[in-house]
Amino acid sequence: MSTNNPLDPLFDFIRFQSVSADSNYAPQVAACAQWLKDRFAAMGLEAVTYPTAGHPVVMARNTPRPDRKTVLIYGHYDVQPADPVAEWTGKPFEPRVENGLIYARGIADNKGQILAHVLGVEKTLREKGELPVNIIFLVEGEEEIGSPNLEKFLNDHREELRPDVIIISDTSMVAPGVPSLDYGLRGVLAMEVKMYGAGTDLHSGSFGGIAPNPAMLLARLLATLHDENFRVAVPGFYDSVVPVQDWEREEWARLPNCGEEDYKQVIKARALFGEAGYSAVERLWARPTAEVNGIGGGYQGLGSKTVIPREAFAKLTFRLVPNQTPEEIDAKVRAHLEKYCPPEVRLEISHGHGGAPFLCDPHGTYSLAAARAAKRTWGRDLARIRGGGSIPILDTFKRILGVDILLLGLANPGCSAHAPDENFPLKNFEDGIRFNGVLLEELASDQ
Amino acid sequence: MSTNNPLDPLFDFIRFQSVSADSNYAPQVAACAQWLKDRFAAMGLEAVTYPTAGHPVVMARNTPRPDRKTVLIYGHYDVQPADPVAEWTGKPFEPRVENGLIYARGIADNKGQILAHVLGVEKTLREKGELPVNIIFLVEGEEEIGSPNLEKFLNDHREELRPDVIIISDTSMVAPGVPSLDYGLRGVLAMEVKMYGAGTDLHSGSFGGIAPNPAMLLARLLATLHDENFRVAVPGFYDSVVPVQDWEREEWARLPNCGEEDYKQVIKARALFGEAGYSAVERLWARPTAEVNGIGGGYQGLGSKTVIPREAFAKLTFRLVPNQTPEEIDAKVRAHLEKYCPPEVRLEISHGHGGAPFLCDPHGTYSLAAARAAKRTWGRDLARIRGGGSIPILDTFKRILGVDILLLGLANPGCSAHAPDENFPLKNFEDGIRFNGVLLEELASDQ
Repeated sequence: MSTNNPLDPLFDFIRFQSVSADSNYAPQVAACAQWLKDRFAAMGLEAVTYPTAGHPVVMARNTPRPDRKTVLIYGHYDVQPADPVAEWTGKPFEPRVENGLIYARGIADNKGQILAHVLGVEKTLREKGELPVNIIFLVEGEEEIGSPNLEKFLNDHREELRPDVIIISDTSMVAPGVPSLDYGLRGVLAMEVKMYGAGTDLHSGSFGGIAPNPAMLLARLLATLHDENFRVAVPGFYDSVVPVQDWEREEWARLPNCGEEDYKQVIKARALFGEAGYSAVERLWARPTAEVNGIGGGYQGLGSKTVIPREAFAKLTFRLVPNQTPEEIDAKVRAHLEKYCPPEVRLEISHGHGGAPFLCDPHGTYSLAAARAAKRTWGRDLARIRGGGSIPILDTFKRILGVDILLLGLANPGCSAHAPDENFPLKNFEDGIRFNGVLLEELASDQ
Repeated sequence: MSTNNPLDPLFDFIRFQSVSADSNYAPQVAACAQWLKDRFAAMGLEAVTYPTAGHPVVMARNTPRPDRKTVLIYGHYDVQPADPVAEWTGKPFEPRVENGLIYARGIADNKGQILAHVLGVEKTLREKGELPVNIIFLVEGEEEIGSPNLEKFLNDHREELRPDVIIISDTSMVAPGVPSLDYGLRGVLAMEVKMYGAGTDLHSGSFGGIAPNPAMLLARLLATLHDENFRVAVPGFYDSVVPVQDWEREEWARLPNCGEEDYKQVIKARALFGEAGYSAVERLWARPTAEVNGIGGGYQGLGSKTVIPREAFAKLTFRLVPNQTPEEIDAKVRAHLEKYCPPEVRLEISHGHGGAPFLCDPHGTYSLAAARAAKRTWGRDLARIRGGGSIPILDTFKRILGVDILLLGLANPGCSAHAPDENFPLKNFEDGIRFNGVLLEELASDQ
């Protein structure tokens, strides 16, 4: 390597327009994979670009030794499309540094984060000639399109992988400069409900009072999903929910950026909303929800039209928490909707995607190792947080490889992933490189 | 007049493509008005084509005599567009006779019906040289676009009109060959409700559980509009409702085409629906409703999107019955919606159009005269019916001219007004001509 300035490889990495969603960018995606593989090879790792049915997986590892722990670091080199390009301050694929922030498409999600680990390993190898662990980098090119080929890849390579722990830096810190372990995420269950009334749209003067109105009856049906305290009113919905633990309540109440007022400012609403008896952060991280993501039926244009629509629909998602499963909740919600649907209309429920909730032990051996590494890097305690969203690949990893996954996000909240002016602090990038070094040390230790 | 075949003038009248909604047809609309005026003049009536801000009004009258009742017959010579033309069996503006039905655009709505009255008067004048009443024909060219200039016309001509009764044949019989007096119609009140939550659409994973969801909260709000018996649950909603009378219950129960099974077949639903305690025909004709005509919010595309929409809307109409007023119901509904709207979201209610319900006395002097005329024409009793829809011009007539309006429809149910293959039976046309003669006699009598 001719230079030790870590921004040089970062900016090279960024300039590949590795947009996985758009086949026009396929050559750039392939070139980006090749660049990454070459980088791994130059570091002295055994690096391979595996073709898949879609974009390639880049894998790199040192020579495994049975006396070392095996750490798998997962990331992705593909990025979201840059649209709407006109809303960026600069060019999306030309990194721009301003006030300590690097702006570029993919800088936070995920190139800056994964490259910090790559350069961290490179630095250790350069300085010490050896790593304290067996390292496996698994960097895919299809995360932004739902990792359609990852499951097959993991199954095909299961025997050669066998990690002790998986590290993923593809999330955000709870607040700038606060190292954070995301030890839980909610799962998700999507479904679409369609309700059919009369055979055609009807004139509401000629038939109002005798024709079933799906737009009205669907609204009534959706209203049965919550009780007056905005708890989900589907029988048995909370049966397998793991309660919020006392230590969680205490720790989360002290976290920066997680107060009612913080969230209110972020969502720009008159007030927060939700289930009675839980704080905002508890509702977001540890309580399941039922949400209407879309609703439609009847006249959608300007003004009024005196129609009784023949059909209406609602798109629903349920956020799930441990130990709810998509299958369990799907059956309970379906039974509830069918029970409350009036017999005059016909209900059609289609299943959408589902993903299990994720939880790892924040007090387990590897979590504690990560906490020591964070303290050494940032000089402060690792915040133990959870997230409201869902990362379906975690379940894939857990099912196939069966080990703990530590989500150690390096991005800032407000990093605008998937949005214009995506950004990542220079400092977080540099901290990430240092963190990788001490993290591998701590993971290797027997404490 | 060179011919006494009444189909000749009817077919001439039909061939004018007098589509008021489309300015491309303005010359045809004007030519149709001119043709009608000439017809009136040829009958010996004083006929005038009055320009308006839109299409002209054709008015015709005999020389008024103070010892005669004045009967105003209202109709319209404009028609709906023929679209979708491809769905017609023949050409929309070329009358086609098959199995005793005449098919053409405007044949039922309203050319066949108004021309039956015109030719009825012509026949009486030809045979008797005189009419038993002062007749005023008022035939406008903008009914299909909401009669925007009729109110001004009536106000401007109020003193010269002063009718004793108004006759309108622009509705349908309750069943083929059953003479029908439509003595009541429902009014209408339209409004649009918009609900706003967070400042932007939000990710339902990142914010589900703390963000107010307008798609869900609007559904809950709409669910408060009805109680469990599907009565409208807005406080005071029924305060001024005139109850269904015993004679109405009895007569309506015996009417053809008005049973539960009849309606079920028309609307092609699994079952009828509506307020408990009333028959279908009672709900349709004499009970008010609250309907959702359109609802929308959030993701409308295929599949699912994990979004909490920032806003949602519903388009509502309320059908009103005597003596509800749009103003009264508007205030009550608004107060109800505002009361039940959660404080976390913002509600915006826009007023749409309103129209008062219509009711005339089916046992009044002129209604009884119409019943005698119907018996003489069809040999059977006049069915006293009401309608579920609204005809806003009735209120305009009543407000300005202040007299009874008899709706004596000559079309058949299933006449496909506003739809392809609009039709009108030859027999109804001929019956209508005869009916006009005896109707004017009976209206003139002192019984």
